[in-house]
Amino acid sequence: MGILSRLLDAIAAPDAQAIVAARRHLDTLTKPPGSLGRLEELAARMAAVQGRAPHVESPVVFVFAGDHGVVAEGVSAYPQTVTAQMVENFLAGGAAINVLARQAGARVVVADFGVAGVFGREGAVRCAIAPGTANMAVGPAMSREQAVTAIEQGAALAVEAHESGAELFATGEMGIGNTTAASAITAAMTGAAAEVVTGRGTGIDEATWRRKVEVVRKALAINATDAADGLSVLAGVGGFEIAGLVGVILTGAARRVPVAVDGFIATSAALIAVGLAPAARHMLFAAHRSAEPGHAIALAHLGLEPYLDLGLRLGEGTGAALFIHLARGACRIYGEMATFKSAGVDGPAAE
Amino acid sequence: MGILSRLLDAIAAPDAQAIVAARRHLDTLTKPPGSLGRLEELAARMAAVQGRAPHVESPVVFVFAGDHGVVAEGVSAYPQTVTAQMVENFLAGGAAINVLARQAGARVVVADFGVAGVFGREGAVRCAIAPGTANMAVGPAMSREQAVTAIEQGAALAVEAHESGAELFATGEMGIGNTTAASAITAAMTGAAAEVVTGRGTGIDEATWRRKVEVVRKALAINATDAADGLSVLAGVGGFEIAGLVGVILTGAARRVPVAVDGFIATSAALIAVGLAPAARHMLFAAHRSAEPGHAIALAHLGLEPYLDLGLRLGEGTGAALFIHLARGACRIYGEMATFKSAGVDGPAAE
Repeated sequence: MGILSRLLDAIAAPDAQAIVAARRHLDTLTKPPGSLGRLEELAARMAAVQGRAPHVESPVVFVFAGDHGVVAEGVSAYPQTVTAQMVENFLAGGAAINVLARQAGARVVVADFGVAGVFGREGAVRCAIAPGTANMAVGPAMSREQAVTAIEQGAALAVEAHESGAELFATGEMGIGNTTAASAITAAMTGAAAEVVTGRGTGIDEATWRRKVEVVRKALAINATDAADGLSVLAGVGGFEIAGLVGVILTGAARRVPVAVDGFIATSAALIAVGLAPAARHMLFAAHRSAEPGHAIALAHLGLEPYLDLGLRLGEGTGAALFIHLARGACRIYGEMATFKSAGVDGPAAE
Repeated sequence: MGILSRLLDAIAAPDAQAIVAARRHLDTLTKPPGSLGRLEELAARMAAVQGRAPHVESPVVFVFAGDHGVVAEGVSAYPQTVTAQMVENFLAGGAAINVLARQAGARVVVADFGVAGVFGREGAVRCAIAPGTANMAVGPAMSREQAVTAIEQGAALAVEAHESGAELFATGEMGIGNTTAASAITAAMTGAAAEVVTGRGTGIDEATWRRKVEVVRKALAINATDAADGLSVLAGVGGFEIAGLVGVILTGAARRVPVAVDGFIATSAALIAVGLAPAARHMLFAAHRSAEPGHAIALAHLGLEPYLDLGLRLGEGTGAALFIHLARGACRIYGEMATFKSAGVDGPAAE
């Protein structure tokens, strides 16, 4: 656990004075103080994380794909073959995340964290430890060692991206069955009941939903998950692609790169990451509130308020890609607006 | 009233089948049906308005500036000089709307709809009818003829923009005192009480707020405003820049150009426009929910659900500029994503 423990040791909260100084700067700009609402809060938080005038011109979206043994329980509307087919689609540039990342000027890193099916096209980074996790309804999804390896592989991709100039990390994923894993992680880390955190995923019917809730309950009962030990939760009921995103989040937190957390599955990775390193929370930006019911519970647990609320429930990093525009707008406001002084604009009248 | 009545005659609701067809196309794309939530609704609505695969690569932000005689009542935190100073700031490119429009790739059209102060810099379109409205607390803000002229001037700018290729109109404004006008318009058009629709504007204290509520009440009492006659409301308690935006909105509605309605003041223009031509409603996109309390009331009256909720209360078109990214993302999703068939991705498993 050398790499992971060094990563955790490197994570500290940003200087509290930095956010005060950023707010002071925002108040000099030609607008009534605070009138840009959450865009100002976003700019101030980004400035505190980056330790300078914030800047997110070069974002990277990590789309990590992995399969889930739990699909054997019949928890998903789509067959497992879709994971590999969607990886092909990502590599061909035809998926929603490709479209939205192109629009946002973001590079997409597609990585195979254990896709069961075969995909032919070149271009995915190979980080597969096994062709999907084991079925969490009959035993742990993966070993603790595998969980650590997957985190470190995700971290290595994030380090590479940062060293190539990435100024923001956006987290995306694909994996048939992974809302079941995210539901189980959310229940384990927040203490919420299975039926409260479990949703309809890609669009399952009532009977399938009831089965999914039972599977989450069973997985939590048979696997030794302890909220105080994030790795036990990740290994017991997680997914390889989720572990990879834990690595991205921890790397962002350690290197002061803002992390745009996408939806329910990415936020379950954030629950694990913050469990391992509580100060990582400060580097996280909840891109949006997903339609999955467990998402709001996970966000509340993390103390994060989402910036968008568009009823998205696709994953892939789509909400995070849309959020990039807000983050970039906030940064440009911070850096490009005239001040009252420079523009010769009067302040409030004396009453 | 030739130009205006021809404009009103040209406004009709989009074909109901167009939105159904657009939704059908969205369901062929490689994502679970509806999983992009409001982005799909936005794409379908844009497609229905434009009558084709929607496209908003060339948006224009109209920033109309005007002064308000009602500032004599002491309703604003900032002196009237700020309107002209901010026009200079818009022309120099240093205001928030300049920054956000640049980011969104939108052209900014700054027009003087009656700024009382002097500004030296070139570049503003001159549409001034008078150096600000009359004080609505002692009589009508403008004559009915002036209201029509200002609408037609705004319409002419919108026509020009459309003929230069604009694919989306975003509405912005500047005018010290104009939240007072917007509050009075909202009360008159929706029937809501003055104290419910009146907010803190740029940041006034309790005593000023109470005075502002009284001014709104008085303006509505002394001016013959009739919700069934939008022009009477606009003339009685409106503003020249608001009238100009009414012209932009009606032109967008007539020419099937989606109109991104910004905050409280722009939405008060939408109330007037929809009062004059109810079908215009279909061409309006409520960019965001402003922090001004009257805004939610105006949006509910129009049956519009905002796409962003960031606590903005600056105006200028800033929320509409941020919304452009969402609109563009929705259009690109519609046009650029692979279909299940083209990408060879399996649909839901048979249960």
